[in-house]
Amino acid sequence: MSTTPDLHRTAAELDAADPLRAHIERFVPAPGVTAYLDGNSLGRPLRATQTRLAEFVRDAWGTRLIRAWDEGWMERPFELGDRIARAALGAAAGQTIVADSTTVLLYKLLEAAVAARPGRREIVVEETNFPTDRFVAAAVAERHGMTLRRIPADPVDGVTTADVAAAVGDDTAVVVLSHVDYRSGVIADLAAITAVAHDAGALILWDLCHSAGAVPIGLDAAGADLAVGCTYKYLNGGPGSPAFAYVAARHQDALRPPIEGWMGAADVFAMGGAYEPGAGMRRFISGTPPILAMLAMEDMLDLLDEAGLDAVRAKSVSLTSFTIDAADALLAGYGVRVLSPRDAGRRGGHVTLGHPDSARIVERLWGEGVIPDFRHPDGIRLGLSPLSTTHAEALDGVLAIRAALEGSNR
Amino acid sequence: MSTTPDLHRTAAELDAADPLRAHIERFVPAPGVTAYLDGNSLGRPLRATQTRLAEFVRDAWGTRLIRAWDEGWMERPFELGDRIARAALGAAAGQTIVADSTTVLLYKLLEAAVAARPGRREIVVEETNFPTDRFVAAAVAERHGMTLRRIPADPVDGVTTADVAAAVGDDTAVVVLSHVDYRSGVIADLAAITAVAHDAGALILWDLCHSAGAVPIGLDAAGADLAVGCTYKYLNGGPGSPAFAYVAARHQDALRPPIEGWMGAADVFAMGGAYEPGAGMRRFISGTPPILAMLAMEDMLDLLDEAGLDAVRAKSVSLTSFTIDAADALLAGYGVRVLSPRDAGRRGGHVTLGHPDSARIVERLWGEGVIPDFRHPDGIRLGLSPLSTTHAEALDGVLAIRAALEGSNR
Repeated sequence: MSTTPDLHRTAAELDAADPLRAHIERFVPAPGVTAYLDGNSLGRPLRATQTRLAEFVRDAWGTRLIRAWDEGWMERPFELGDRIARAALGAAAGQTIVADSTTVLLYKLLEAAVAARPGRREIVVEETNFPTDRFVAAAVAERHGMTLRRIPADPVDGVTTADVAAAVGDDTAVVVLSHVDYRSGVIADLAAITAVAHDAGALILWDLCHSAGAVPIGLDAAGADLAVGCTYKYLNGGPGSPAFAYVAARHQDALRPPIEGWMGAADVFAMGGAYEPGAGMRRFISGTPPILAMLAMEDMLDLLDEAGLDAVRAKSVSLTSFTIDAADALLAGYGVRVLSPRDAGRRGGHVTLGHPDSARIVERLWGEGVIPDFRHPDGIRLGLSPLSTTHAEALDGVLAIRAALEGSNR
Repeated sequence: MSTTPDLHRTAAELDAADPLRAHIERFVPAPGVTAYLDGNSLGRPLRATQTRLAEFVRDAWGTRLIRAWDEGWMERPFELGDRIARAALGAAAGQTIVADSTTVLLYKLLEAAVAARPGRREIVVEETNFPTDRFVAAAVAERHGMTLRRIPADPVDGVTTADVAAAVGDDTAVVVLSHVDYRSGVIADLAAITAVAHDAGALILWDLCHSAGAVPIGLDAAGADLAVGCTYKYLNGGPGSPAFAYVAARHQDALRPPIEGWMGAADVFAMGGAYEPGAGMRRFISGTPPILAMLAMEDMLDLLDEAGLDAVRAKSVSLTSFTIDAADALLAGYGVRVLSPRDAGRRGGHVTLGHPDSARIVERLWGEGVIPDFRHPDGIRLGLSPLSTTHAEALDGVLAIRAALEGSNR
């Protein structure tokens, strides 16, 4: 069993050997924050983003003014979507847009998918998936008089291919699942589960919020149908930055989202009498694209391109593995359980620890500048955004939890 | 008939006497732009916005990080909505949020309104209203097997109270209209038309995109039910900034929008099994609020508060009246028609001029740094954002149009 000095030494060695360590200097420093362990909830801004935003106000918005729509803004939702697709999703161009919020995009794609599977009366979800996914699906199901089938899943190991195979059938229109679970961080088998849904004739809609930018996804290779995800976690787009939606090219012409807005029309400025859906991903846009809100994520995409997703994933595995080792060594004696998979291959970018006093512990840690997230009812979630987090920070988090459990000052 | 020198003198006098003239210096200068006449499409940024955004990245996002959600961000959609309500809508607190886009909010409110008038089979729109309004309403009507009744309206004088009275009846669920028409700028009689809709037992949903920040609205006094509007025109929120929605307090508990997202739930972080709609305006929020994208409009709201909406409206009337005078004097001889009301009391913040060569003229003007908007099929729209536009700029626009019609250089 490692001791605290051992772990400090290991953290220092791992950080020294980290090929991505130089990138940490590119993030805006946070005075008073010893360990930021919530980059999977809100990614830290890059220093470059301050300049990017100020220059945008002066130049593109302030000087090009309305002309900028013709000079590139109209294409931004598609170009930025393609950029995310290439950097993070494993998807070819022409299938991804940036728009709206995850919730709104999920709704739009789910409604369109249900309409594309007429006669099928069931939407399948995982019963403890992130609330917005379940809530949106429940409302869509209720509205169409459909059944919402909720797959139970092991809280650590998540939903398995067998679970999904047992749930889907001739009556399944759409399956909605998360790739990486927001609590345990378990990675669902995207390719195998997609195949099982397809075997039943259903469409599958993946929520990629907790994987995009941290875990390779391979949407095209898996033959996935639809996906959504947010950009303020590992893509560091800033609080409430717009989300992304992926629709496999083969489905685009057959799907018709329920919100038929001017920006989704075939000829946006014709101002015509009737709505004619745009080709490709155009029809999945509703209102005026949120150009200003799309800017910040570009800096993280620059960094992601530079580092490469494989290196990011390798660092992520190192961070989560080390964190679990530290938790085993320092916290198990206090009744803290590891609520994330121990198999690194099945674990995303965060680690959740369980303890009945989690809410109190997280509150105390925040006061000390150690910032994990509390997840109802009893989880301390340590989000280890690979490009902005050190092994030393992860250890600080574990030590701070121990101090809180001891009721002592560190 | 005024001559060009007369008009130059008048413009100079009006600008010198303008009590709001000092405010123009607060906007980011646009090198190469002689006359920006599209502030009703994309408002110019304030200089303060550059600093606000950069400081936000460093402080709130970069340093407070996830803690900022607890320290105010969760309440921003409501607080900013209340601010817009007070400054621009004539609405009491607790009825307005900032969220999504105009299109998405329109969809959410319209679906909720249709559900609140069961048995009524008709949605009423104005047949040449802005496309997103008609498109969204048409899709909602089709989805529910309802009729979309399209009121014809005079292209200059717009929809009258009598037009609406003739269209609505026992079968009307909702009426969707714009307060200020996006082409002619005519102001609809919001109070009288609202009363007519109510007399028929219908709800009314007002699109305030072209009035918010330029024309007093008086939503509460009119007894309006629902409204949406965008913030990147006269509220200068930046390209694609989030929209606002108003739901009169008396309707909030009875309406249930179709997108049931986690941020609309009564207890957002309970992560519970079933969606319980939040009280008040909470339920009209879907996904994570677009905090970064809400920032820029605060600078314009500061300025609007300082100037006062009555003074802004007075300047707006002066600008549009002067522009029409100049067009009459300089352009009528070239076959240019004024497509906006001549009664200032019925005219919003922009003036549209009609000529068959409008598309070509606008293209030429843009190349010269004179920037109006082309509106299909034959309109040159001069948007005269009161706080950032001078009478001299308006005259420059008219003179540039004349030069284009003469095929000459100015």
